[in-house]
Amino acid sequence: MSLPRAFASDNTAPAHPAVFAALQAANEGAAPAYGNDPWTARAIAWFKQQFGESTEAFLVWNGTGANVVALRALTRPFNAIICTEPAHINIDECGAPELLTGCKLIDVPTPDGKLTPAMIERAVRGVDDEHSVQARVVSIAQSTERGTVYTLDEVTALCRAAHGMHLLVHMDGSRIANAAASLNLPLRAFTRDAGVDILSFGATKNGCMGAEAVLVFDPALAAEMKFLRKQSMQLSSKMRFVAAQILALAEGDLWLANARNANAMAKRIADGVRGLPGLDILQSVDANAIFAMLPAESVPRLQRDFKFFVWNEKTGEIRWMCNWATSAEDADELVGAVRKELGVR
Amino acid sequence: MSLPRAFASDNTAPAHPAVFAALQAANEGAAPAYGNDPWTARAIAWFKQQFGESTEAFLVWNGTGANVVALRALTRPFNAIICTEPAHINIDECGAPELLTGCKLIDVPTPDGKLTPAMIERAVRGVDDEHSVQARVVSIAQSTERGTVYTLDEVTALCRAAHGMHLLVHMDGSRIANAAASLNLPLRAFTRDAGVDILSFGATKNGCMGAEAVLVFDPALAAEMKFLRKQSMQLSSKMRFVAAQILALAEGDLWLANARNANAMAKRIADGVRGLPGLDILQSVDANAIFAMLPAESVPRLQRDFKFFVWNEKTGEIRWMCNWATSAEDADELVGAVRKELGVR
Amino acid sequence: MSLPRAFASDNTAPAHPAVFAALQAANEGAAPAYGNDPWTARAIAWFKQQFGESTEAFLVWNGTGANVVALRALTRPFNAIICTEPAHINIDECGAPELLTGCKLIDVPTPDGKLTPAMIERAVRGVDDEHSVQARVVSIAQSTERGTVYTLDEVTALCRAAHGMHLLVHMDGSRIANAAASLNLPLRAFTRDAGVDILSFGATKNGCMGAEAVLVFDPALAAEMKFLRKQSMQLSSKMRFVAAQILALAEGDLWLANARNANAMAKRIADGVRGLPGLDILQSVDANAIFAMLPAESVPRLQRDFKFFVWNEKTGEIRWMCNWATSAEDADELVGAVRKELGVR
Amino acid sequence: MSLPRAFASDNTAPAHPAVFAALQAANEGAAPAYGNDPWTARAIAWFKQQFGESTEAFLVWNGTGANVVALRALTRPFNAIICTEPAHINIDECGAPELLTGCKLIDVPTPDGKLTPAMIERAVRGVDDEHSVQARVVSIAQSTERGTVYTLDEVTALCRAAHGMHLLVHMDGSRIANAAASLNLPLRAFTRDAGVDILSFGATKNGCMGAEAVLVFDPALAAEMKFLRKQSMQLSSKMRFVAAQILALAEGDLWLANARNANAMAKRIADGVRGLPGLDILQSVDANAIFAMLPAESVPRLQRDFKFFVWNEKTGEIRWMCNWATSAEDADELVGAVRKELGVR
Repeated sequence: MSLPRAFASDNTAPAHPAVFAALQAANEGAAPAYGNDPWTARAIAWFKQQFGESTEAFLVWNGTGANVVALRALTRPFNAIICTEPAHINIDECGAPELLTGCKLIDVPTPDGKLTPAMIERAVRGVDDEHSVQARVVSIAQSTERGTVYTLDEVTALCRAAHGMHLLVHMDGSRIANAAASLNLPLRAFTRDAGVDILSFGATKNGCMGAEAVLVFDPALAAEMKFLRKQSMQLSSKMRFVAAQILALAEGDLWLANARNANAMAKRIADGVRGLPGLDILQSVDANAIFAMLPAESVPRLQRDFKFFVWNEKTGEIRWMCNWATSAEDADELVGAVRKELGVR
Repeated sequence: MSLPRAFASDNTAPAHPAVFAALQAANEGAAPAYGNDPWTARAIAWFKQQFGESTEAFLVWNGTGANVVALRALTRPFNAIICTEPAHINIDECGAPELLTGCKLIDVPTPDGKLTPAMIERAVRGVDDEHSVQARVVSIAQSTERGTVYTLDEVTALCRAAHGMHLLVHMDGSRIANAAASLNLPLRAFTRDAGVDILSFGATKNGCMGAEAVLVFDPALAAEMKFLRKQSMQLSSKMRFVAAQILALAEGDLWLANARNANAMAKRIADGVRGLPGLDILQSVDANAIFAMLPAESVPRLQRDFKFFVWNEKTGEIRWMCNWATSAEDADELVGAVRKELGVR
Repeated sequence: MSLPRAFASDNTAPAHPAVFAALQAANEGAAPAYGNDPWTARAIAWFKQQFGESTEAFLVWNGTGANVVALRALTRPFNAIICTEPAHINIDECGAPELLTGCKLIDVPTPDGKLTPAMIERAVRGVDDEHSVQARVVSIAQSTERGTVYTLDEVTALCRAAHGMHLLVHMDGSRIANAAASLNLPLRAFTRDAGVDILSFGATKNGCMGAEAVLVFDPALAAEMKFLRKQSMQLSSKMRFVAAQILALAEGDLWLANARNANAMAKRIADGVRGLPGLDILQSVDANAIFAMLPAESVPRLQRDFKFFVWNEKTGEIRWMCNWATSAEDADELVGAVRKELGVR
Repeated sequence: MSLPRAFASDNTAPAHPAVFAALQAANEGAAPAYGNDPWTARAIAWFKQQFGESTEAFLVWNGTGANVVALRALTRPFNAIICTEPAHINIDECGAPELLTGCKLIDVPTPDGKLTPAMIERAVRGVDDEHSVQARVVSIAQSTERGTVYTLDEVTALCRAAHGMHLLVHMDGSRIANAAASLNLPLRAFTRDAGVDILSFGATKNGCMGAEAVLVFDPALAAEMKFLRKQSMQLSSKMRFVAAQILALAEGDLWLANARNANAMAKRIADGVRGLPGLDILQSVDANAIFAMLPAESVPRLQRDFKFFVWNEKTGEIRWMCNWATSAEDADELVGAVRKELGVR
């Protein structure tokens, strides 16, 4: 299947064929509603196998829902959540975190999409002062919204610093598979084992139609989760069809293969265009996204044949996203078009 | 496909085979995310065709989401929403309406799941008194949570009464297809044309995996909807897969055939057990649910072979739900078992 | 000072002269803001003396604020709060409890303004069921909104029943002084010692201009209180002037004398009109309120000379409230007018 | 009355003697509750006289309450409120604006406490994009939290720019009197007439015990105010005592005299210490606050005899606040001590 020209978002990707096969296999007659079905049980078992037996997994509809349910579990309304300025929870969720948690988001400028212990330290203020919101959560994305990936050491140091300041750590893993592929590490190594308290696990961008999960590593935080999920409108009635999507990705580590392809295609493009005159790659291409500057007049010309976004209208920065379905031909076509546009053969 | 024994909920039903076919047909390469795709456009067009050209349709994940997004569009936090005591928004949504709207729900006891103009009139109090929440919405379910269906005259009278008291009308149509089949009326006749202002349109229970919509009949109420949907975490990124499910039901009026089957099976069961000694059918079987009293000792015996819920633990009342996939054989097996249990041959 | 004709509300009463004296005494130069002043320390000390050393006291502006801050300390947004139908939190706070806590209020009809263990038991449902809000708090008023007072045994039994169902008990004590005077018991006997977990302590109606407090008897519940108070906009910057009002009532047990007067005047009126033809006293006159039925045509005639409310527009029930400033002459004037209106000399 | 050493906050000031006189005058027998009394009517009339006849005034308890009620009137939960980083609503209200409005606050760094049209323009993004909160309000403080005062031209330009971007303007006037005294302009000139839509009018810091108001200049915005005030727990039951405080300041323009004194004392101090070795005045002393840098070791020595805050723990910046009760002797004592500390005679 060829998907030329689609570099706008991993959300424009189709679903993997294995997902449909799994859905149809799950369509065997009646099944208990609301997650009391065998497919959900198997999906939960897979999460436990990946992240440790005491992990509690809660399937939800979408990434914003996963983030909000996770943040609700960690906060009271007078708390604050520290995140980066370009964090999805900060700029792409239409204020859902604020509305549902009541909390303030403290957004920190960051050059590369990552938070550092020093940034957290500066963001925490007014501790125990009743006039001030009380910082309670550090939320990081892995991979980040800038296409970078925290190293294991970075995650570990951040979690240690956060815990030292009595903060909990939420990881927005809408692209967790891309991070795992990039780091070449087991999922739990750079999440639970590194100190993450709660994880939004993304599957939609990695080949599903719509399937995500909240993974809770501290059982004490899990007690309220089922109520928070339902009250947040994230409980699927026919949940077997969410579970089946995740099981399709789990089977034979399809999730990892999908992520590896997306990352490889981004690298292929970056390698193909790096150093071209007038083109700057702005971030380390750790996962499946490339952020770059191009001559202003080149952008609309390239957009005639390739779908991609101007990420920052003020600077003109653009973003190319690859996904599980991006082929080498897709990547090469883009590289070729960029080279031609920039007068390089 | 035979589904013996499943009378617990229309949410235990599988998805209709046509839904999978439609999903796979929608899986053609890349497509714009967040509803800017041709399948969503066609689903919206179908809603306009059914409900009138000025109808605005917003696809969402699930029924609780549809209800909450709809109610948010109609209210400010000092408002109240009048509903029945057994309303889904009142007892089955874990307080999502209260949390997301800020409003109080005024729940009215009802013998048959229906509100009447007189009930509304009694529920409205403290008009313009700042100490009191200000009633703003009447929310009714069609079909109701008690298996009954408002007649066209009843809906019309209720909407007229509500509007006369400056109240807006929300209809929870998680089983709207069953109501249409029961009334043998076009969808718009007993919704928009009867005075309903906003409708939660249900498709999940009627053969989908997970697909609902909010339909707004007053364009003035639609302006904020896209923000309310996103902030309520009900915006699907790969929305074509929600739209495709609805298109599958739209094709050849499959939605109506599915609902007619569910209703017919409920009637078949009711006809088969009515008048048996020790059995009382408690509500008019207008749609796909039967509420009944059985001898207390019979319930667990029947539950060994048939899945169904005790609806009211205090009275012992039980509920049998039929759905699109219930077959005549399923129904007859249940009837036979009940007759045998009650000593009738 | 004579206050003829004012039986509408204890909120129409003036402030006690001692309150002004205390305010002026507190006006000595600069003082730390936000409660770090000696008057607030003394008010807190008085509360500890009355209710026990481990009591934590938080001064707030008004009764609705006290109730909301208290309820926020006890709940998460998926919880429910059980109260009576005529509870102030249910009908007189414009939905503030719902908005600030996110919770549903489950309101129970009650003949006399009191909850009973049986009522609580019926109101609790769906325990541990994610579709249902989870009951967490029982909120009672003492004295009640119907002018009655829970006996010590009633409060004790209610708290025991609530705790047995894992529910916490909030007492709305906007008229706690009237209850203490009625029961002739120390404040802590029928609150903390009877099992109440958190108390809204009212002083405004009892002779202040505007001064209330939240008293927390379980220190574990107090940790978040200062943040909840500030975020609920109930933290006074010049708090010494709230504290001074409470100290004025504390001095020489003025609070008790005030309440005794209010109760005595209500009793005097009730005794004076009881048994008159056409007049029914509907509730036990335990504190400072009288609820009665009068001939419909008599009400507007009496309202020409006396301020009082028709409590229930549908039944015509009226309410006469006495307060700290009601004099025997006031009471007797009312009695005389009623007797005359009803043709009794 | 001498108040040596109190430069921590205008909230540490006592109340003006005229306030007590007014309170006692308002204590004449019974009066209607909740603002239906003649004192409240007169306070509202005074606001109309100052700000124009169509002004709607709503008395509230405190400044945070005024800000929150005002912001609720202007917003829906998917909106954003643009303010400065040091804005009271951003850092001193424990997240009350977020919790009560549901909105995100977009905080803008500012060197002098002021917003500019260019800052607003940069802060507005994602217009009509459902993923982004929708900016709706610009909130400015007058005088600012940095002791500066917007000129008439600055306010006018800001309001014009805001309205051009379909934004409404809220002014936090907790120190509005100080701004009026500084600008030497009538209150309405730099508020309503300059384009401000809604104003938090502060009286507490200017000599009251606790009295503020929300002033609404667009009647369309006022319709919901009474419900918003009550639901925000900001409706005083014995409101005459809030009103009387404001009437005391209104009488003979006491509000202006108080503000002029506070401003003059700040100027006196600034003039007395400006240019001393090791001391930098960091902001224009337009109103009653002085922000300065001192040698680090001098701060604790001066704090032994004078109450004032280190405003920024990280830089060591300190703040001296003057208020209505600050005397020339107080000011001179501080100046003398600073000169001595810095080795200047």
